[in-house]
Amino acid sequence: MKVKEIGEYPLVARLCQQLERVFGIDKRVVVGLGDDASVLELKETKLVLTIDTQIEDVHFRRRWMPPFELGWKSVAISISDVVAMGGKPVAALLAIGLTGDETVSFVDKFYEGAIALCQSTKTLLLGGDTARSPNGLMVSSVVVGVLEGEPIKRSGVQVGDSIVVTGFVGEASAGFWLLEQGKGEIATSPPLHHCIERFRKPEPRVNAVQVFRSFQIHAAIDISDGLVIDAQRIAMASNVQILLDFTKLPLSQALLEAAKITGKDALSLALTGGEDYELLLSVPPSVVTEFCQAMETAGIPAHQIGKVIARHDEGQVLGRHSDGTISSLQGGFQHF
Amino acid sequence: MKVKEIGEYPLVARLCQQLERVFGIDKRVVVGLGDDASVLELKETKLVLTIDTQIEDVHFRRRWMPPFELGWKSVAISISDVVAMGGKPVAALLAIGLTGDETVSFVDKFYEGAIALCQSTKTLLLGGDTARSPNGLMVSSVVVGVLEGEPIKRSGVQVGDSIVVTGFVGEASAGFWLLEQGKGEIATSPPLHHCIERFRKPEPRVNAVQVFRSFQIHAAIDISDGLVIDAQRIAMASNVQILLDFTKLPLSQALLEAAKITGKDALSLALTGGEDYELLLSVPPSVVTEFCQAMETAGIPAHQIGKVIARHDEGQVLGRHSDGTISSLQGGFQHF
Repeated sequence: MKVKEIGEYPLVARLCQQLERVFGIDKRVVVGLGDDASVLELKETKLVLTIDTQIEDVHFRRRWMPPFELGWKSVAISISDVVAMGGKPVAALLAIGLTGDETVSFVDKFYEGAIALCQSTKTLLLGGDTARSPNGLMVSSVVVGVLEGEPIKRSGVQVGDSIVVTGFVGEASAGFWLLEQGKGEIATSPPLHHCIERFRKPEPRVNAVQVFRSFQIHAAIDISDGLVIDAQRIAMASNVQILLDFTKLPLSQALLEAAKITGKDALSLALTGGEDYELLLSVPPSVVTEFCQAMETAGIPAHQIGKVIARHDEGQVLGRHSDGTISSLQGGFQHF
Repeated sequence: MKVKEIGEYPLVARLCQQLERVFGIDKRVVVGLGDDASVLELKETKLVLTIDTQIEDVHFRRRWMPPFELGWKSVAISISDVVAMGGKPVAALLAIGLTGDETVSFVDKFYEGAIALCQSTKTLLLGGDTARSPNGLMVSSVVVGVLEGEPIKRSGVQVGDSIVVTGFVGEASAGFWLLEQGKGEIATSPPLHHCIERFRKPEPRVNAVQVFRSFQIHAAIDISDGLVIDAQRIAMASNVQILLDFTKLPLSQALLEAAKITGKDALSLALTGGEDYELLLSVPPSVVTEFCQAMETAGIPAHQIGKVIARHDEGQVLGRHSDGTISSLQGGFQHF
């Protein structure tokens, strides 16, 4: 059977089992594969480790992804994974594959973007690797973080929890479609420009880490592949049923405007568009209001968008539409 | 100016300056970009961090690189970098890009190879990232190690030092040529098979780390791009002139045989072939004999192949041929 036939989920599940069997027994492995990042205990320090790859024409196109933004985003998405474990980013490494036809100024700007993001998140960029990649650009990014206390895993969701999302979902994916449809150049209006910036220059929610420490967050995931698919991941990992209330989704004016221009449905962009690099959190209901306020104080918009309503063997995500009907939700980005 | 015009050296040098200016001032950065790996001080633990990428048709071809060996080598080359800093590998992460046309068994075997190498070097494989890479396979590997004592940098070479190389240089590159010339299948004779194994399954010299601790090694580099170019790197970093004695190069019978079959010059393969993932070391002359014996005891062949003869502003590598003549050496693998 081929990779594109088995699909991403089963492929990664096989790998998780394979690695868990061999390395999971080691006490230093606090969190292995299968969460946003791995956690390794080393001389009483908990290290959070993650790697991501961005590939030309899969994750971005050269014609609409300037090098500064590519450098920025490459590190940002890995930092977002570290934050989703409750970790504070410390250092980053980059490996870049270049065709050789890029200008030196392109490479300079790529690193300027990576450096700018690192500086804004107090992350040290330690360097990396440069190789020839004749068939297109590729970037792998690694971020090392440290974790105080326990990791916030995908599997900790409890029945009764409130589901909270940071930021305004769907904007990044609206920005992607503006670019992909060649409307990036004409998107001079602030709302459209904002969506494009959200796609090209996501801001990992590093300030959330200090807020997490004052509250007992049960579970977290960064929603890079889409709200629904990432909600499914925590539902599966925790064996629960999550009900998302569509009337509570924070759909911004910018999203609505960009949806109109791109001919996309705003709700679909928010639910399955992906690329948000926001956090989806499962929070005890007794503290959720206070938690959302603390997040806002830290500069991070946070909205309650659902509830964990029951245990569920396979994990399930339901959606309550504005007319009150409830349906099972699916969909989001998968590589295979 | 384009990347392929400026070349790999100046490109990386620019980047080193750029990062050094911004992050080099941070006291946690013990070694930044420009050595085999970076060293980060974190709560009194020195972490060694490195990233490498292997790209299809640049670093390997699918037709002669089986998945087990690809998985093995991907981690091995990063472990070799950690060892070259004096670090002990602890954990690895992999990011793999697949076209989707690979079989699931291909992916299983890739990870089996990575796991086998990790087990043989007591490294935890924590997982990683799987993405679609439509134009060919790619693998990024990250290894995190710990360092007791001071890092062994490229810049510590002193005049009078003995230059030592581990293993038998040139074999891996002979193996590459056997494969590239389509002679992999007919290479059933043990010496040829040995060269192919040296290319496809390099064994990072992790046992060397404990030996390093008993001796004051001045400098180290792993010779992945070729003996001469990597000798030049330590010569440049240390501002010295190194004289390699060709009569002392450990040219194995296997290399000589593979050179004959591939029509290549054995000495050239040893000097500029690359892919050895052996260590080039600068050792105080007073302890070099004892050091080489200790390495052999640890299962690592080690040979004195040269001397550091003078200070030199740009750094230079000379070679003494078997007829006694001396010439300046250049050459090795560069991406651009």
